[in-house]
Amino acid sequence: MADEKKQVEQITSMSEDFAQWYTDIVSKAELMDYSSVKGCMIIKPAGYAIWELIQKQLDAMFKETGVENVYMPMFIPESLLEKEKDHVEGFAPEVAWVTYGGLEPLEERLCVRPTSETLFCDFYKNIIQSYRDLPKVYNQWCSVVRWEKTTRPFLRSREFLWQEGHTAHATAEEAQERTEQMLNLYADFCEQVLAIPVVRGRKTDKEKFAGAEATYTIEALMHDGKALQSGTSHNFGDGFAKAFGIQYTDKENKLQYVHQTSWGMTTRLIGAIIMVHGDDSGLKLPPRVAPVQAVIVPIMQNKEGVLEKAAELKDRLVKAGIRVKVDDTDKRPGFKFSEQEMRGFPVRIECGPKDIEAGTCVVVRRDTHEKLTVAIDAIETEIPRILDDIQKNMLETARAHRDSHTYDATEYGEFCETINNKPGFVRAMWCGDRACEDKIKEDTGATSRCMPFAQEKLSDKCICCGKPAKALVYWGRAY
Amino acid sequence: MADEKKQVEQITSMSEDFAQWYTDIVSKAELMDYSSVKGCMIIKPAGYAIWELIQKQLDAMFKETGVENVYMPMFIPESLLEKEKDHVEGFAPEVAWVTYGGLEPLEERLCVRPTSETLFCDFYKNIIQSYRDLPKVYNQWCSVVRWEKTTRPFLRSREFLWQEGHTAHATAEEAQERTEQMLNLYADFCEQVLAIPVVRGRKTDKEKFAGAEATYTIEALMHDGKALQSGTSHNFGDGFAKAFGIQYTDKENKLQYVHQTSWGMTTRLIGAIIMVHGDDSGLKLPPRVAPVQAVIVPIMQNKEGVLEKAAELKDRLVKAGIRVKVDDTDKRPGFKFSEQEMRGFPVRIECGPKDIEAGTCVVVRRDTHEKLTVAIDAIETEIPRILDDIQKNMLETARAHRDSHTYDATEYGEFCETINNKPGFVRAMWCGDRACEDKIKEDTGATSRCMPFAQEKLSDKCICCGKPAKALVYWGRAY
Repeated sequence: MADEKKQVEQITSMSEDFAQWYTDIVSKAELMDYSSVKGCMIIKPAGYAIWELIQKQLDAMFKETGVENVYMPMFIPESLLEKEKDHVEGFAPEVAWVTYGGLEPLEERLCVRPTSETLFCDFYKNIIQSYRDLPKVYNQWCSVVRWEKTTRPFLRSREFLWQEGHTAHATAEEAQERTEQMLNLYADFCEQVLAIPVVRGRKTDKEKFAGAEATYTIEALMHDGKALQSGTSHNFGDGFAKAFGIQYTDKENKLQYVHQTSWGMTTRLIGAIIMVHGDDSGLKLPPRVAPVQAVIVPIMQNKEGVLEKAAELKDRLVKAGIRVKVDDTDKRPGFKFSEQEMRGFPVRIECGPKDIEAGTCVVVRRDTHEKLTVAIDAIETEIPRILDDIQKNMLETARAHRDSHTYDATEYGEFCETINNKPGFVRAMWCGDRACEDKIKEDTGATSRCMPFAQEKLSDKCICCGKPAKALVYWGRAY
Repeated sequence: MADEKKQVEQITSMSEDFAQWYTDIVSKAELMDYSSVKGCMIIKPAGYAIWELIQKQLDAMFKETGVENVYMPMFIPESLLEKEKDHVEGFAPEVAWVTYGGLEPLEERLCVRPTSETLFCDFYKNIIQSYRDLPKVYNQWCSVVRWEKTTRPFLRSREFLWQEGHTAHATAEEAQERTEQMLNLYADFCEQVLAIPVVRGRKTDKEKFAGAEATYTIEALMHDGKALQSGTSHNFGDGFAKAFGIQYTDKENKLQYVHQTSWGMTTRLIGAIIMVHGDDSGLKLPPRVAPVQAVIVPIMQNKEGVLEKAAELKDRLVKAGIRVKVDDTDKRPGFKFSEQEMRGFPVRIECGPKDIEAGTCVVVRRDTHEKLTVAIDAIETEIPRILDDIQKNMLETARAHRDSHTYDATEYGEFCETINNKPGFVRAMWCGDRACEDKIKEDTGATSRCMPFAQEKLSDKCICCGKPAKALVYWGRAY
């Protein structure tokens, strides 16, 4: 009894302290643990299983577009990192340096990869000679290291898991096409698999990736109204190609530079799932990334036939392709219910002697808390249908939240007030000058999240300086 | 034409220079490339796709036994690495040290994990309190770093990919059971999936893992008669638990130390596949880990209907669950045939106008070079059957090679002569003394590979010193 209450009581409510609520969830849902290595976390089974489902589905989408996986070394020699000027300036201050191999000091320092553009360029320089060798559309799944000063589980840590795609193309057009293709793939993945709606757009020069010609982003809105950059896709033009000398002979036998892209998504997505879908009962997982989609809780499990029926249900659901488990521990049902909610399993199936006699079971949805009576005979068709419905409903709920927290502003006073008092995205026009971005950041703490693909004209003037506007921008405070 | 010949001519034959033959294959079959980071390799798409198939199948076998995946930090603080005396002595001389984070020197050096026992112990110390928390059966897929002096693709490199399982149990018996269970799982995996027969056994104290009470190994025999340690499973007893203070309260409310195991397999398996199955035409992949199981080569592909038929065959085979591709490039058929052999695709399907008219295609097996005429209508059942047969035949061939290169010796002169003149395993009795192992190494270059589970008594005396024998040992030169 004490234990039962403890678990629920210890979650801080979202409205009281969102940051503490987040920390409570990652720990109570057993997604991660802190390690003895400052700023690095341990991803526990419940968290890693989500990442495996993300990997599996995202990787399948990649492969459908012709992506091939490779593995590059985790170390980058200092001289290689330095080859592209903007890139090294962006990353050198936050990398970890290896200076000793065994007992010997190294002749040249190696950094632990913060990202692998330089390694891929060095590789492409050697394997690309002719137009026949193009395109190269490679990706790797690995961990990267960035020596962050302040860290938060899944959102910002010194080491994190990700995938990084790196491509090389014959033409600028093809590179641009791939850049947008991957951004759209990321957006579709977030919406269809994670049930997270995103705004697709382009970063301003201030916010773009070190060394990129253009960076595209998908931006999601968390429950507290802060934005989370959830995936980025960069077009490098031929900048890296020139720095690294990556040239090919075209059909007319002329030497040309390749055009490159890179794109990545990370374990940060697990943070997005928590902050978009979670509530005061805990985590709420979209069925497509729920390691357990249905948990069967036998009621009065010592009565004859109850555990047998639970096992039968489980077998039938496994055969129907559902990820299911039976909780037959000696905990009380109420505790098991709380635990299902805390861990975010999309449905729980309650089944006791009376249900069995009636040929039914009780299905409780994690998203709506709705209780449904389902005929045991129909379980193989009903549970998948309910899971589909949950998946759709979670996306709609998240979209409604995002839309009702997206505001338009045409006057600077109104803009600042909205940012300060109404957490969410604020859409406003911008002149294109860095100075206005800096001033907005200083006045409100908000940054430009993106210039959306779907441009509109809210007014003719920059929200900040009043000069002619060049683009509609989504502004917001961000993680 | 020149290109066509070049590809085949450039492979050194196995009998002429096995090491060069190996190097030729990894490069011509495009499995890997060298990188600018000394001792670290790039795993190219054809190599990484093999690793993905290994991962997928091995991971499924793990999960059937209750293994859960996690992710631990890649760094180990020096003080943590030093906690277990034997362990640090074994690994400290060959680790890479991070000494700077960004622009600041670190207060404490961090090594890049060479293996993660110490991290798991530190983790288990925090999450294990009661017998209810046991067992813990965790695994991670990651890369590790060991600062080797001499390296060879897949066999020994400064960074390699692997999985490392780490478990904690209430009793010594349970730990021993898990140690053996995983070793047997590895052996089954090698035989069933990689078509590589192995000898299962225990390492001598000289050869065991730094910090282990007992190390078990599977040893495979390469085509040149050298042994390759292909997977290991360690029982740590409570040694690490005592060093790290990992204790739990048992049912009688008494504090007890846990008993631990660890076990790993690596990208070295790709080296084993090459050296067990390959021949002078190139790589030979067992169907279960072949990224392309069947390549369709259209003959006279410009004739009407040929490419259409090839596409139809492909679709039908994809539906039958076969990994298949069509080679419709403008290279000549002969070149495509060589390429299929070099890359090790288990079957090639030739299909030209005459075949189509006859309603048949020609299927050529990579393992036997046999040509089969197969009715196009039967393709969905015939190709899977042929692939199964190839898988079985490759295991049998490898087993026959292993068995015909395994010798028994009962006299030291005979023993040395066999090691020196007949590449393979030599089975001989051993007294249990390290001195004899050292002498044998000095005299012949051979090491003790393992004390097989299947013990026999070839004589009463140690092959080396003549004192009473304690165990039958497999000896051999090794990678």
